[in-house]
Amino acid sequence: MPTSSPLAIGIDFGGTSVKFGVCEGARIVSSAEPIDTTAYYGRPPEVLIDAIAERVDGLRTENVVAVGAGIPGLVDFERGHIFEITNVPGWVEVPFRDLLGERIGMPVSVDNDANCMAYAEWRHGAGKGYSDLIAITLGTGVGGGLVIGRQLHRGAQFCAGEIGHTSIDYQSPAGDGRMPGIIEKFVGNREIAAHANRLYAGAGIEKDIADCTPKALAGAGDVLATQVWQDIANWLGVALANAIYLLNPQAIIIGGGIAKAGPVLFEPLREKLNQLLTPVLAENLQLLPAKFGNEAGIIGAAAQAAVQN
Amino acid sequence: MPTSSPLAIGIDFGGTSVKFGVCEGARIVSSAEPIDTTAYYGRPPEVLIDAIAERVDGLRTENVVAVGAGIPGLVDFERGHIFEITNVPGWVEVPFRDLLGERIGMPVSVDNDANCMAYAEWRHGAGKGYSDLIAITLGTGVGGGLVIGRQLHRGAQFCAGEIGHTSIDYQSPAGDGRMPGIIEKFVGNREIAAHANRLYAGAGIEKDIADCTPKALAGAGDVLATQVWQDIANWLGVALANAIYLLNPQAIIIGGGIAKAGPVLFEPLREKLNQLLTPVLAENLQLLPAKFGNEAGIIGAAAQAAVQN
Repeated sequence: MPTSSPLAIGIDFGGTSVKFGVCEGARIVSSAEPIDTTAYYGRPPEVLIDAIAERVDGLRTENVVAVGAGIPGLVDFERGHIFEITNVPGWVEVPFRDLLGERIGMPVSVDNDANCMAYAEWRHGAGKGYSDLIAITLGTGVGGGLVIGRQLHRGAQFCAGEIGHTSIDYQSPAGDGRMPGIIEKFVGNREIAAHANRLYAGAGIEKDIADCTPKALAGAGDVLATQVWQDIANWLGVALANAIYLLNPQAIIIGGGIAKAGPVLFEPLREKLNQLLTPVLAENLQLLPAKFGNEAGIIGAAAQAAVQN
Repeated sequence: MPTSSPLAIGIDFGGTSVKFGVCEGARIVSSAEPIDTTAYYGRPPEVLIDAIAERVDGLRTENVVAVGAGIPGLVDFERGHIFEITNVPGWVEVPFRDLLGERIGMPVSVDNDANCMAYAEWRHGAGKGYSDLIAITLGTGVGGGLVIGRQLHRGAQFCAGEIGHTSIDYQSPAGDGRMPGIIEKFVGNREIAAHANRLYAGAGIEKDIADCTPKALAGAGDVLATQVWQDIANWLGVALANAIYLLNPQAIIIGGGIAKAGPVLFEPLREKLNQLLTPVLAENLQLLPAKFGNEAGIIGAAAQAAVQN
């Protein structure tokens, strides 16, 4: 007997692995063995799509109504088309929705992974109930997604939410080759570790770069680690304040690895935002840690698919 | 006999004058003598509201259905409440909609003036037909308004669109006391004139500050004036690219005094945006001069009032 709740399968399609989960709302009720993406580099997308379809077939039950995928790359959400996936050679201009949909006989949707994370937090997580929010993921890269007027705002070319590519320093030599001083080049995992490493070295303290990761810094508790978190707050605060002056959202949701640092990140960041924002904005803004971790992509992709079908 | 089209009265409530126009769409069919705002500084708001009501009574005809006002300040759009008006002493916490509405017996709406400009351009001007756009006014200050998903996006506290308060340099000493390096402190009229004045002085050329205004620079045609326009493009380009990476709009509409400079502003700015944006964003973005000038506030305020009533 099928249960009464419709289920959806969420796919988190990454450069190193493709992960699967059957979701009932925010609950992942079952999952499949991940696929090693690297084994499919440079091969025709159809081969990996076949492997994905096999996993979906293995997971599906009668009350699974749709499949949603989140990818780190550029999509046309309306056509279910993937323009490119970062770090997956061979995945260029792939009509993913149609190819996978034909193979499995179920509706398929595909969106940017940061949008999936934002959607998961808004529908089922820290952003539940808000009409306007900005979700940001802090990791190797910095991604973002926007909910505006109770809608995920994808933008004219489905590229909206790229807060990681916004600049806090028009003169900075660091950038992505186009934009100077993008926030990702200040608060990306590697950049934080390199910055901490320089601070320690400057103080005559030899620290391996592996002991300078955000995770290590969160537990370090020394003066220099505190300085690094203050610097992160100063940089990230300006990038967030820029987005807040533009959008005046109700909430900022922060996820990704660095967000797990807790108060060492959130306390100086909150203080910095209070300093940067006008009182009416500062007093009304919620700054919240994300509810979901690595599973946000699966949950958000499944939730989007469930709503559309 | 009344005509068949409903009309609305637009009020452009500024720090030096209050202007009036009866609008049929984008057409101002009649107007009244402006009120000198300075004569009412520090007096109870009711006194100026009486004067405004008299002008409205003089302008109204049978087919005038509503009155809309645009103010340079902070409002609660839903309650029709003015929190404060920049440079108008005494106008703090004024229930404008109710006070004027009771006096004239017609529906009254009130919004931020930059929102009115954005609305005018979207409904009747350069932004007609777009679902997502950013409108920006370049003058003494830098204001902005957003249309997202065919809606004016006002934000949780009706403060959205403040692109003038976004930063391009987190380390800059220039700012508004809260945000460092806000774009308004780079491309405001006075800041442009001061920058040009410094460049000329540095080259040993004595130029009165009055000959360094954006208007004067637009016609100057010399190497240093060209440099100033390039600097403006470099600064404004980063602020706009930040907003574009975040929102991925279809169009940017630029209005206000400086926008009248034409190609000397738009050509280097377009080139800068093409350099800063990824190809998919650059190729699809329209960069457009505003259709309306000083009358944008009246037209937008009236258009908002007409739609709501």
